[in-house]
Amino acid sequence: MKQFVLLAIVFGLFAFMPQKKNKVIFFGDSITQAGVQPGGYVTRIDSMCKTEKMNDRYEFIGAGIGGNKIYDLYLRMDDDVLAKNPDIVLIYVGVNDVWHKSMFGTGTDPDKFEKFYQAVINKIKAKGSKIIMATPAAIGEKTDFSNVQDGDLNKYCNIIRDIAKKNGIPIVDLRKGLLDYNLQHNAENKEKGVLTSDGVHLNTTGNQFVADAMWRAIKEIK
Amino acid sequence: MKQFVLLAIVFGLFAFMPQKKNKVIFFGDSITQAGVQPGGYVTRIDSMCKTEKMNDRYEFIGAGIGGNKIYDLYLRMDDDVLAKNPDIVLIYVGVNDVWHKSMFGTGTDPDKFEKFYQAVINKIKAKGSKIIMATPAAIGEKTDFSNVQDGDLNKYCNIIRDIAKKNGIPIVDLRKGLLDYNLQHNAENKEKGVLTSDGVHLNTTGNQFVADAMWRAIKEIK
Amino acid sequence: MKQFVLLAIVFGLFAFMPQKKNKVIFFGDSITQAGVQPGGYVTRIDSMCKTEKMNDRYEFIGAGIGGNKIYDLYLRMDDDVLAKNPDIVLIYVGVNDVWHKSMFGTGTDPDKFEKFYQAVINKIKAKGSKIIMATPAAIGEKTDFSNVQDGDLNKYCNIIRDIAKKNGIPIVDLRKGLLDYNLQHNAENKEKGVLTSDGVHLNTTGNQFVADAMWRAIKEIK
Amino acid sequence: MKQFVLLAIVFGLFAFMPQKKNKVIFFGDSITQAGVQPGGYVTRIDSMCKTEKMNDRYEFIGAGIGGNKIYDLYLRMDDDVLAKNPDIVLIYVGVNDVWHKSMFGTGTDPDKFEKFYQAVINKIKAKGSKIIMATPAAIGEKTDFSNVQDGDLNKYCNIIRDIAKKNGIPIVDLRKGLLDYNLQHNAENKEKGVLTSDGVHLNTTGNQFVADAMWRAIKEIK
Repeated sequence: MKQFVLLAIVFGLFAFMPQKKNKVIFFGDSITQAGVQPGGYVTRIDSMCKTEKMNDRYEFIGAGIGGNKIYDLYLRMDDDVLAKNPDIVLIYVGVNDVWHKSMFGTGTDPDKFEKFYQAVINKIKAKGSKIIMATPAAIGEKTDFSNVQDGDLNKYCNIIRDIAKKNGIPIVDLRKGLLDYNLQHNAENKEKGVLTSDGVHLNTTGNQFVADAMWRAIKEIK
Repeated sequence: MKQFVLLAIVFGLFAFMPQKKNKVIFFGDSITQAGVQPGGYVTRIDSMCKTEKMNDRYEFIGAGIGGNKIYDLYLRMDDDVLAKNPDIVLIYVGVNDVWHKSMFGTGTDPDKFEKFYQAVINKIKAKGSKIIMATPAAIGEKTDFSNVQDGDLNKYCNIIRDIAKKNGIPIVDLRKGLLDYNLQHNAENKEKGVLTSDGVHLNTTGNQFVADAMWRAIKEIK
Repeated sequence: MKQFVLLAIVFGLFAFMPQKKNKVIFFGDSITQAGVQPGGYVTRIDSMCKTEKMNDRYEFIGAGIGGNKIYDLYLRMDDDVLAKNPDIVLIYVGVNDVWHKSMFGTGTDPDKFEKFYQAVINKIKAKGSKIIMATPAAIGEKTDFSNVQDGDLNKYCNIIRDIAKKNGIPIVDLRKGLLDYNLQHNAENKEKGVLTSDGVHLNTTGNQFVADAMWRAIKEIK
Repeated sequence: MKQFVLLAIVFGLFAFMPQKKNKVIFFGDSITQAGVQPGGYVTRIDSMCKTEKMNDRYEFIGAGIGGNKIYDLYLRMDDDVLAKNPDIVLIYVGVNDVWHKSMFGTGTDPDKFEKFYQAVINKIKAKGSKIIMATPAAIGEKTDFSNVQDGDLNKYCNIIRDIAKKNGIPIVDLRKGLLDYNLQHNAENKEKGVLTSDGVHLNTTGNQFVADAMWRAIKEIK
């Protein structure tokens, strides 16, 4: 009987003790910068988390800046990510590394993309945080691989997948997901308007699509 | 009986009369420039033609110049093609219009590609020659659409297919052919070495592959 | 006395005979397309011509299309220029051949720029029209040669100057003129706003500046 | 007398005590990578230092890697520079940030060039080392500003000069130096062969030219 009382007290204590929340930081570019806006994918993950009554276990922080490439993440990661002691960092980058090649002549070489990505991972790991990686979903939603950057974007997604594999990091393959979704919902082979507003940035459906995929991955992290 | 004799004489005359040869001009870039070399696709077509004892019906002329884009063809077509009174012109262009964008910043805008291509067709038609069109086969032979220019090249191939359709011109779809071939023979997802030596220019197998496809199309022209 | 009367009659006839006007066509890109608008440089030349009471001797036609490069001029010159039987063609092109390299990856290679320019000249000469050439004035008005495209634009201007020299064609060196003007009037080293609104397209002062230079050159043509 | 003896001993001690050498690290790209080779500018500085009998006061280390841009320096500076406890770091970078735009579409945006450059400076300052900056000398040696990248390179040199000024860091203005030298020694307006072998990399004369300028700057550092 005594033991039972003790157990009850212990359980009771745990029940009322404020549980340490998992701090999840979304680290990326303009897509993530928009993600914290109303309707954005980060905001939607927060809502789903509350609906599922898990908000005592997670908090979400957006760390997206428009135009960022992998080396921009590296430059600002101490201040914008590591200083906040995240439990989980979700890295979602790559569109600008490809896109800015033809737009401004300032994309990222594939070998340097890999080198900086690995350096970002190393610093997060050294901090003791967990990592989730995501592939960039699209620069154009056509399904016949005739979006101008399709080849190069696929190449960089392959690099990201290889890095994830080599480092044993879970990956949210948005690139594959968006293509599969479009193969079902974009019979007209439209360049935009299915999951994106402009071929790159997420529309309402797209934000929910990304939120679903990422929230699933976050809950799977032990 | 008299009539029969006469008929026999007439037939005999035709049999020995030198038949007017169909002059086929291959109009293109470095791939076609190499095509007239020993082992090249034009040379191979000529050989196949002889083997099939049809060399009294066809003669083949190469008009390929390295680095040519569609507007280069337009500029030199009077001298290099029309002045030779071709019966058939085979237009095989497009790689440089895409490739030179990232190489030199001097590719061709899609709308201008279409405009010049149509202008080339119009001039050949006005001359009374028949036309066969070909899509550019590849800038890289990977089969998962991760060759850097895959998206853009597919886009330009779509433009070429649309022009062919709109003008009722037969097309040799080398782009589709090369991909299908690679899906069967390039399990390792190599960038080159299957039908090309460098991802763009044809190797021995590639020259025969293109020769087969084009020779088929030429014989189908009425 | 009789002879004098006759002479007087003859002179009188000429005085009232409608003189054949010199048809001047301005052949170029968006700068010339804007040039025929109110306040544009072509409109200003027309006004100056009237002020100087020379409008019985000249008429002016704009043939500028936005985004045009030298090969676009070549493609449309039969319809837009030669069919109108010009007496003088003023070729004013080159900005897009340079600018579109970094903007779209679709600029013009220097050797092809020269080749197409010469081809345009040859066709105009064959028609019997006179030619005036102009250098592209600017992509940015900074005077310390730190406008991004300064080097490449200077290179293409050198090509244009060489073509003019080789062909014995008068040249309106707007590039040199704009730089000289800016060295006097742009002490702050501004990128735009002196003779252009955006570094490329002419503002009010710029349109008058170009009109002055071109009108001078037109009147000098014999 | 005693005092004199003591003084003599003290002096003698200093004379034979190994003086702490100033460790100078040259931090840059392929130009600096080549600089440590026989005949290279770093090697030449070392030789001049010995000739001037100052080799007890300086030691020189090359830290140049081909293809490096400013963000590559940032990525590797902990290992390659700071870990070696330099007294002076000479930053000589910028050619690839401009050149790779047109070559590979992977140059550096001007605002990010500045941001990374400042970040490199901050880390060196935090370490307590002194800094010397250098402007990239050339991409082409023509003196009429018709080298294709002249405008953009001048722009980036202006950025470097502004950073130097803002941070109170001495600058070796190789860009200005090379132009002045060429104005005197390159009357033919050659693209290369005066101070460079290919317009970018230093030839024998160029290596001595850079060595002279940098050695002067190093000796002026207090």
